[in-house]
Amino acid sequence: MAELLREIYPQTGRARILGITGPPGAGKSTLVSQLAGVYRAAGERVGIVAVDPSSPFSGGAILGDRIRMGDLYTDPGVFIRSMATRGALGGLSRATIDAVDVLDAAGFGVVLIETVGVGQDEVDIVKAADSIAVVVVPGLGDDVQALKAGILEIADLFVVNKSDREGADRTVAELSMSLDFTTPVSGWRPPIVKAVATKKEGIDLVRDGLDAHWKHLKATGEDHERRRKRAAARLRGLLELKFFEEVEADRSRPDGLEEAIDRVAERRIDPYAAADRLFRRFKQR
Amino acid sequence: MAELLREIYPQTGRARILGITGPPGAGKSTLVSQLAGVYRAAGERVGIVAVDPSSPFSGGAILGDRIRMGDLYTDPGVFIRSMATRGALGGLSRATIDAVDVLDAAGFGVVLIETVGVGQDEVDIVKAADSIAVVVVPGLGDDVQALKAGILEIADLFVVNKSDREGADRTVAELSMSLDFTTPVSGWRPPIVKAVATKKEGIDLVRDGLDAHWKHLKATGEDHERRRKRAAARLRGLLELKFFEEVEADRSRPDGLEEAIDRVAERRIDPYAAADRLFRRFKQR
Repeated sequence: MAELLREIYPQTGRARILGITGPPGAGKSTLVSQLAGVYRAAGERVGIVAVDPSSPFSGGAILGDRIRMGDLYTDPGVFIRSMATRGALGGLSRATIDAVDVLDAAGFGVVLIETVGVGQDEVDIVKAADSIAVVVVPGLGDDVQALKAGILEIADLFVVNKSDREGADRTVAELSMSLDFTTPVSGWRPPIVKAVATKKEGIDLVRDGLDAHWKHLKATGEDHERRRKRAAARLRGLLELKFFEEVEADRSRPDGLEEAIDRVAERRIDPYAAADRLFRRFKQR
Repeated sequence: MAELLREIYPQTGRARILGITGPPGAGKSTLVSQLAGVYRAAGERVGIVAVDPSSPFSGGAILGDRIRMGDLYTDPGVFIRSMATRGALGGLSRATIDAVDVLDAAGFGVVLIETVGVGQDEVDIVKAADSIAVVVVPGLGDDVQALKAGILEIADLFVVNKSDREGADRTVAELSMSLDFTTPVSGWRPPIVKAVATKKEGIDLVRDGLDAHWKHLKATGEDHERRRKRAAARLRGLLELKFFEEVEADRSRPDGLEEAIDRVAERRIDPYAAADRLFRRFKQR
């Protein structure tokens, strides 16, 4: 896989990468289908990478969803890749970004990444996008708190989906008020858009919002800054992988990782001292 | 902080650590309060570490919750620590486990960890517990899918909270069916317990389930295995921290991290080759 990615890497960097995130049940998959349809109608080839375990793209949901998205599944201009396995050591985010690269190099003009918007892993993944849409539903309740803690600050666009439900305007107002207390990153205040993805309502507004953000990125040079951050995150992940591969290779040696784990578990050494010792040993090799 | 933790480490390992996890809105905080009350009534000193951003313990929820838990807040036998900041490099899980150690060494017999049950970080944290209760509510819908992907396999006990709502029995049946397809870890099949934490209903069943699991751990030696895994995860986290501290220290040098990031972002080198080069350089120093 690494070999392949090395070869295609010079061909990457052309796709527009859109992240769609939000809590389970917000209707992200339906929105992703609709957006894919809109960009498809505009002549783009569209890649979808679903990291959301509850997404029908990932095979997580009932068969009905898959059937409803039949058009996408049979369109050769749409490629769907679901990231099901969750490995250790950032394996999921590495594999996801690699998948985006493959689609990018293969000439897909738009790549949509769908993730559940809770947890560091998911946030890391969606940060790989050029633009991030956070999807919420009316009457979030406790979810608003969770959003505030991790997701609010990464949104370039808010979609209040299922906005035919009671409380949609209040959710818009609450989000807007939260934004009043946030300093906009490089002068961009995330628009808040209402949609009903199942009825194809508001999809154009979502696309318009994403397109406006794309123009803003280009106009301010923020697109380069984002791609630099993405490169940094990838390098970090790969360095971590290499480091632990070497630590693991030595794990059974005397004074190696195995022995250190036993001693820490038995309280014969504290984890800080044990880590110091292992690290010194690693560097001496 | 590391100095303090080194000193107290030999005094740790005595507390019983209970993880309470589940999606936002499942009522975890209320259940944690009630459980704390039950163990308190049995004469235990109880520590609470809240990693859940939506938890009232973390200051996330409305003042009302805090007032409802007034008894706990004024009881000197209860210590509440909320982990609000989410740092990079596993900082949150490191800080959380450190907080658990401090409470353990200080003689708190029971330590309750509350986390939102989505995302790798949160799963890593709750894995530090001896027993893990996964809290769900009737009519999960999409949440069941998310649960299946990450949380189902770590549960030692399921609590169907708010079980006075419609669909509680169906949720119990669904969970039970999912368990039929899972191989029990070391012979333990997670009990499924119904509760209404706000009405103090079923709390004793939750405690009984946790106590039965604790006895099982002791009887099978699984408790040692869990503590060994915990030691391994901590060592890993600390090694990672040390490694990146050194990489970061060199970041601005020629051929250092800064330069590599630029070259990857500009597609002049692929991330795999850049990581190889940085890593070789790190080892040569």
